[in-house]
Amino acid sequence: MNTQTIEPDELWMYRALSQARQGLGTTSPNPPVGAVIVKDNLLLGEGFHERAGEPHAERRAIANAILRGHEARLKGATIYVTLEPCSSYGRTPPCTEAIIQCGISEVVYGSTDPDKRHQGRADEVLKAAGVHVRSGVCQEACDAFLRPWKHAVQHGRPWVVAKVACSLDGRMTRRNGEWLSCVESVKEAHQLRLESDAILVGGNTVRTDDPALTIRTPKTAIPKAKIQPWRIILTRDENSLPPTAKLLSDEEAQRTIVCENVADLKSWLESLYQEYGIVQLMLECGGKLLRQFLEQGMVNEWVQILTPRITGGADEMVPGDYLPNELDFETEYHLSCGRDILIRGIIL
Amino acid sequence: MNTQTIEPDELWMYRALSQARQGLGTTSPNPPVGAVIVKDNLLLGEGFHERAGEPHAERRAIANAILRGHEARLKGATIYVTLEPCSSYGRTPPCTEAIIQCGISEVVYGSTDPDKRHQGRADEVLKAAGVHVRSGVCQEACDAFLRPWKHAVQHGRPWVVAKVACSLDGRMTRRNGEWLSCVESVKEAHQLRLESDAILVGGNTVRTDDPALTIRTPKTAIPKAKIQPWRIILTRDENSLPPTAKLLSDEEAQRTIVCENVADLKSWLESLYQEYGIVQLMLECGGKLLRQFLEQGMVNEWVQILTPRITGGADEMVPGDYLPNELDFETEYHLSCGRDILIRGIIL
Repeated sequence: MNTQTIEPDELWMYRALSQARQGLGTTSPNPPVGAVIVKDNLLLGEGFHERAGEPHAERRAIANAILRGHEARLKGATIYVTLEPCSSYGRTPPCTEAIIQCGISEVVYGSTDPDKRHQGRADEVLKAAGVHVRSGVCQEACDAFLRPWKHAVQHGRPWVVAKVACSLDGRMTRRNGEWLSCVESVKEAHQLRLESDAILVGGNTVRTDDPALTIRTPKTAIPKAKIQPWRIILTRDENSLPPTAKLLSDEEAQRTIVCENVADLKSWLESLYQEYGIVQLMLECGGKLLRQFLEQGMVNEWVQILTPRITGGADEMVPGDYLPNELDFETEYHLSCGRDILIRGIIL
Repeated sequence: MNTQTIEPDELWMYRALSQARQGLGTTSPNPPVGAVIVKDNLLLGEGFHERAGEPHAERRAIANAILRGHEARLKGATIYVTLEPCSSYGRTPPCTEAIIQCGISEVVYGSTDPDKRHQGRADEVLKAAGVHVRSGVCQEACDAFLRPWKHAVQHGRPWVVAKVACSLDGRMTRRNGEWLSCVESVKEAHQLRLESDAILVGGNTVRTDDPALTIRTPKTAIPKAKIQPWRIILTRDENSLPPTAKLLSDEEAQRTIVCENVADLKSWLESLYQEYGIVQLMLECGGKLLRQFLEQGMVNEWVQILTPRITGGADEMVPGDYLPNELDFETEYHLSCGRDILIRGIIL
């Protein structure tokens, strides 16, 4: 009989990752991080970072252990954290300090801090205090989970996810004007909005479709810390937008950013990160604007919802001639989503 | 513990189906059929129909049982056949006769004969001879397997499979002229050729790509009864084809059919079935011709090889405006094929 063993280290780190996942989409410009405290194979406490300015995962896990009555057991315990703990004063005091103070004797983390100024600093501080440190446990999974944030920190601009819904023959609309995607795919698209800090459309989409771009999944599925994502309109002329458009007039109107005549997407994206702390930007624009992002190499991830239908039509996903540089793609998965096929991957 | 039981009936019928599969692509205009003879849960013999004019599956299974020394055991045995046995004289005598003669006492079959003149006739003949008959075992699987042939018999024209290879954005060529598909997908495409009686391209493909359209999988993978499929060129002007083109000059040149100025695809397809016995036709043409087939409702099955790459370009899979009638599609499967994604389904 075949047996598959999971090392305790991996088991606890995956538990920390599933904690981290609870913060997905609510922590920007901070990363979503999870932590689990363990002693003698017993879970003492766990927690995740929920919102910038609020306690980090490590402190929440310690607080959780205390809440569970495990304060005395913290001495000599091990903490699993998905990301190298912070070691400097930010909006909250460094986590290394909290770890040392409560007597935790071992820190195991997955991903390293992408900021060269901080990278490895936690190890030094902790080791100097006699805490044992191990890193690189489930590093691949932690890195993949933190990819958008790491990209933002390293490049100073958001991770850009393009979401496209199309027919088998690559068209984005139907003759009868109805939606292509099935309800299950639309649900997935809202889940993607949940993970994003901002959603972008072009002026044309505003004029034609008048979208709200809000998250409309069942309330129970939305983390309580989630605020509606920023809604960004890229347009040649702000005055061409109808003032009655939902994005400009609904109750979330103060969460809409209108930008005119953006030619250099890279520096514009940099400003979005700096000014608004946008770590993940999702494109829900038409083909023309999408092509502009592709041409400038500014798309990082691609989510394609393929509807089993052959439509023809002028509404191409990527209109126009060959791209100056063909884009290579690493498929992460393709799966059935209702009757549609969902393909997700990274643009290389 | 969960257990899944397979009824003996299903088990033997699936075995008959896997026999039938060995005849796939070599039996036209006859159907690929398999048969298995069983008594007291013991396999006595099995066989499949290999080529028109040669013995049917039932006779080959009987012969196989005799070869294995089971002649005496045939009396009172059960034969599983994927398709209702034939009951009339064709190029070979009726199978019902052979079944009755050898003393088989029960016939179990999956699919019914789509020809109304024959449908149910086997039951009558067999029952009159005291043979027990059951039908509809694994009918769905047998029907699906026989779909192309049933379509051809019912509509008097071939089952048309469109094979398209494209980028994520629906383009069929690359800027650098290299192939889109990976080697694993190309292998799949050759497997499809194996199942087809004819392969169609347009004059333009002949002039641009000069394809051979022959099956070039390893010899061992090609059934010995398989002859190279017909190669059909649809062109506006036969003289526009270079005489040195492979299809017109290679050693299989006598297997090339050139047709000029076909406007009504339906009646043209009917003639292909009548004159050449072509049951399954595979399209490997460019977008323009493919669109013509789609517009006229003459595509039955769709195999799309999607390469994870974003290319742009003018070579659209289905060029032009919205199709007059959008085509709905039932996905049979999508799976990874090397780095590509292979989507296969039926056009509704």
